[in-house]
Amino acid sequence: MNHEIHLVERPKAKPTHEHLKIVEKDRPQPDQGEVLVKLLYASVDPYMRGRMSAAKSYIAPFELNAPMEGGVVGEVVESKADTLREGDIITGMLPWKEYTAAKADTLRKIDTSLGPITTSLGILGMPGLTAYFGLIDIGQPKKGETLVVSGAAGAVGSTVAQIGKISGCHVVGIAGSDEKLAYLKNELNVDEVINYKTENVSSQLEKACPNGIDIYFDNVGGNISDAVYPLLNKFARIAQCGAIASYNVPNDQGPRMQMHLIKSSALIKGFTVGDYQDRFHEGFTHLAQWLQEGKLTYEETITEGFENIPDAFFGLFEGTNIGKQLVKIAEPTHN
Amino acid sequence: MNHEIHLVERPKAKPTHEHLKIVEKDRPQPDQGEVLVKLLYASVDPYMRGRMSAAKSYIAPFELNAPMEGGVVGEVVESKADTLREGDIITGMLPWKEYTAAKADTLRKIDTSLGPITTSLGILGMPGLTAYFGLIDIGQPKKGETLVVSGAAGAVGSTVAQIGKISGCHVVGIAGSDEKLAYLKNELNVDEVINYKTENVSSQLEKACPNGIDIYFDNVGGNISDAVYPLLNKFARIAQCGAIASYNVPNDQGPRMQMHLIKSSALIKGFTVGDYQDRFHEGFTHLAQWLQEGKLTYEETITEGFENIPDAFFGLFEGTNIGKQLVKIAEPTHN
Repeated sequence: MNHEIHLVERPKAKPTHEHLKIVEKDRPQPDQGEVLVKLLYASVDPYMRGRMSAAKSYIAPFELNAPMEGGVVGEVVESKADTLREGDIITGMLPWKEYTAAKADTLRKIDTSLGPITTSLGILGMPGLTAYFGLIDIGQPKKGETLVVSGAAGAVGSTVAQIGKISGCHVVGIAGSDEKLAYLKNELNVDEVINYKTENVSSQLEKACPNGIDIYFDNVGGNISDAVYPLLNKFARIAQCGAIASYNVPNDQGPRMQMHLIKSSALIKGFTVGDYQDRFHEGFTHLAQWLQEGKLTYEETITEGFENIPDAFFGLFEGTNIGKQLVKIAEPTHN
Repeated sequence: MNHEIHLVERPKAKPTHEHLKIVEKDRPQPDQGEVLVKLLYASVDPYMRGRMSAAKSYIAPFELNAPMEGGVVGEVVESKADTLREGDIITGMLPWKEYTAAKADTLRKIDTSLGPITTSLGILGMPGLTAYFGLIDIGQPKKGETLVVSGAAGAVGSTVAQIGKISGCHVVGIAGSDEKLAYLKNELNVDEVINYKTENVSSQLEKACPNGIDIYFDNVGGNISDAVYPLLNKFARIAQCGAIASYNVPNDQGPRMQMHLIKSSALIKGFTVGDYQDRFHEGFTHLAQWLQEGKLTYEETITEGFENIPDAFFGLFEGTNIGKQLVKIAEPTHN
């Protein structure tokens, strides 16, 4: 048998167990050119919330009564393709099924010498590339500038904060627990940290950013961004990566911010990592080098068990994770 | 005697006669290096509302119990400077006084052969340059793209709409009266027009933009922009020039828009014409050439009388003007 996690109802606000269901199906057989993949790790990411809605976006909505899908690490347990063999560890976008038959050419074999296989879902995967391109291409960090990062202890934010330090910025991280703040301060050497759940973000930002804000890497939107906009310096840049504060709030309202942009001649650019597909090699090269040099570090929060994928996903909206939130489904057979 | 218009109270919402006062003072005497300027035309502009508030912005607030200030055309009636002589027609930023003593090097002599002297406050002045740089530099118009302009019948918007047509765009203009729509359609050859006061902007935009929106030149913000954001195409560009809908609304609230930017990888860039100071020559050259070739036209709404400057200014927020709103104070003596 094969367990799958299906979207059975589209959430209007927070996603819950009402919306996802574990279903039993037959284990698939690979066709010619395909491999059978055993799921080892599944990534859960805030952007998936968008695909649960039917609205038009940069990526198609998930289908109802079909599996959710996301970045995974898996092991090839049967191959009918020339390019992959049994025992290969791969990464790709696959449905949430314990076993999946997938075309070999949609998967990438992981070079396990570069680091633990889970890094291909984190620092050496989409979150790492998202951090790199958003900060470098949109943020254009210069030495001595002030960079504010919201969602700073997450997979993307924690990488942004570190690349900000590498770029010589004064880095201010905003996160939602003292444990996260300690991680940012002590492990990542972030200059100033703010707990948005217990502190007044506006006044703490003013203290933490005596020279104003030049770059804002925004993962969250909502009240936190409202507090950032008035402090923008002339020609500030905002990389709009996410808006998790709005994902579960239908018709979320807030102060209009156009006047702040005019006053500071500031720029906001929305983006997704796919916009930079042609430059992934550049991103991987820098990330891998910094990792090797010890300039970049990363944290993972790992939940165990296929059946716990939904809870790990829901937890993203409660801010329970530090660094990359993963779910471990199985050990590699050939380990 | 010399009449002056002073800011006597800072408005919290709409500016009214409570906030401005006509004051009688002595006529000033020019010092060495200065000229005495007689005001001929005063420009009233929405951005002045921002300077009436004490809040930090890209330009210093007006002082209380001192004259308001803005772009003017004037005549030199007495000169103690080598570079200007009696009878010269000049433009510059001067206080709202019938006669002003000003340093000659802060004024620019108008070449009256280029067109009527009022064009230096409109199509060949700040509004023309604002339209040019916002659309060309931020909007990056390409042939066949869809350009939406809010405040389309104003001094800036009407120039944007025409440069959009010159660039080969499908141009959609939004304005607030049937007279303005007729002007846009018939005089400026705008492709589609929407009356935001009598029509449903969302549904009309969907009809007018069957291929989505690639460029939005925004003078107004507010509800109109709310209706634009969901229709943005991938990699859309928004030139945030003004937000007149918010100027008189303390703590104006609306739907948060970050998710629209992420979904379309869109860019919003706030700007003011001063950002492009180094490129003014480029802008003037293009605008003057298009004007000469008959590709650009312009409209002026002229109110008569120094004492009517406040009403002309207040009218901007009621949308009473088509094209550039000016106040005529006097004829040139040497005409």
